[in-house]
Amino acid sequence: MSRRIRITVAYDGTDYHGWQIQPGLPTIQGVLEEIVTGIEGELVRVEGSGRTDAGVHALAQVAAFTLVNPIPVDNLRRAMNRLLPASVRVLRVEETHTGFHPRFDAVAKTYRYTIFREEVCPPIEWRYVYHHPYPLNEAAMVTAARVYEGEHDFSAFAAADNRDEPISKVRTIFSSAVERCGDKLIYTVRGNGFLKHMVRNIVGTLLEAGRGNIDAHTLPEKSGRTAPAKGLTMVGVEYASDVSLR
Amino acid sequence: MSRRIRITVAYDGTDYHGWQIQPGLPTIQGVLEEIVTGIEGELVRVEGSGRTDAGVHALAQVAAFTLVNPIPVDNLRRAMNRLLPASVRVLRVEETHTGFHPRFDAVAKTYRYTIFREEVCPPIEWRYVYHHPYPLNEAAMVTAARVYEGEHDFSAFAAADNRDEPISKVRTIFSSAVERCGDKLIYTVRGNGFLKHMVRNIVGTLLEAGRGNIDAHTLPEKSGRTAPAKGLTMVGVEYASDVSLR
Repeated sequence: MSRRIRITVAYDGTDYHGWQIQPGLPTIQGVLEEIVTGIEGELVRVEGSGRTDAGVHALAQVAAFTLVNPIPVDNLRRAMNRLLPASVRVLRVEETHTGFHPRFDAVAKTYRYTIFREEVCPPIEWRYVYHHPYPLNEAAMVTAARVYEGEHDFSAFAAADNRDEPISKVRTIFSSAVERCGDKLIYTVRGNGFLKHMVRNIVGTLLEAGRGNIDAHTLPEKSGRTAPAKGLTMVGVEYASDVSLR
Repeated sequence: MSRRIRITVAYDGTDYHGWQIQPGLPTIQGVLEEIVTGIEGELVRVEGSGRTDAGVHALAQVAAFTLVNPIPVDNLRRAMNRLLPASVRVLRVEETHTGFHPRFDAVAKTYRYTIFREEVCPPIEWRYVYHHPYPLNEAAMVTAARVYEGEHDFSAFAAADNRDEPISKVRTIFSSAVERCGDKLIYTVRGNGFLKHMVRNIVGTLLEAGRGNIDAHTLPEKSGRTAPAKGLTMVGVEYASDVSLR
């Protein structure tokens, strides 16, 4: 009898080449597969809700895999955390229905991008923020963030190497907001899906609005420069079957 | 004309072999001296308020050096931060009186020790806490922390290799308190001086009180095991000449 296991994972992406497995490079999917394969005794594929870029962090990424091993879920969580590096932690392990797919079943994802605004960035913040102490019209950025809400074709915000793929680039953004929190400017976006580099390209465009280079009131036709990965954190993934769905 | 420069420095101690310069090893004093020496054009000694151990962090360590270079203090701060790794930041640079000595002139220092209490330690907290999810009588630790307040001979809490030095081990502790803050148990101690390993040995002893192995109401005659360095952060140093003196 095989079991479908869903896990919730947090990671500090600083020292990883992103989520997706790559031969010879440390990746989140790579370390997870290595450890689950060790527990199962044969190759196990770990599927994620989405591929985070190199350097991007996660508070609650969701992944799933299929196991024959009857190990109880709490023991599995403990075993995985004992074997994983401290930069990757399994927060939760649950048994789910056979057909569960973390990417196809996701109905919403939330990302957060943090810009540190003071001149000197504290060493304990540095790994998790983009340090940008230069002048910005933050009120314009607050206005500009709102124009992404709703259903739009985000082709202009896809990664350059993905723009010409014949796949729909239409996504729905449920909320998109910039907020000042102490020393930080925080952008939080929740949507039904995101293209490769989309959040970082939106942030790059918000920065252009903050510099006064583009109009803050309309959806731009082309994106600004991709903002650095280190400021980005995947906050969470939602599924229709979850009670916690907002 | 030589100038006496006082700097306030924050660092993430994870990747350093402590404050004190050691040939061939990365240390905080070492990186600071290298950079200030580069700016001055000849060897400059950087003196700190105290030597933090390998792996210990600082929010506001104070150091001083003597410079002939007339560079304005704001430019010096910017130049140092441009040359230093992101794990070490100069928060403040001031010109002070010729005789200023960061160690001898200090009248109080504050340290904080953080114990993470939940089963799974988030990757973004991990570098700055001691992860101890096991049962502890935290109320006993709150009681035990108070017995260190006042003037005491702390010989039993000095590092083993320093215990027999013929130097006074009497120190005055102004405040010593354990507090639960969310997922963390935080010990904060402020005193007129600390022996090598003293804070970590006090924390090791508080943990013994939390385990019920020693009486929480009297000053113990011997110390518990030295608590891990990574949970310790130097919070600040106070000088009689500072207006900010509490």
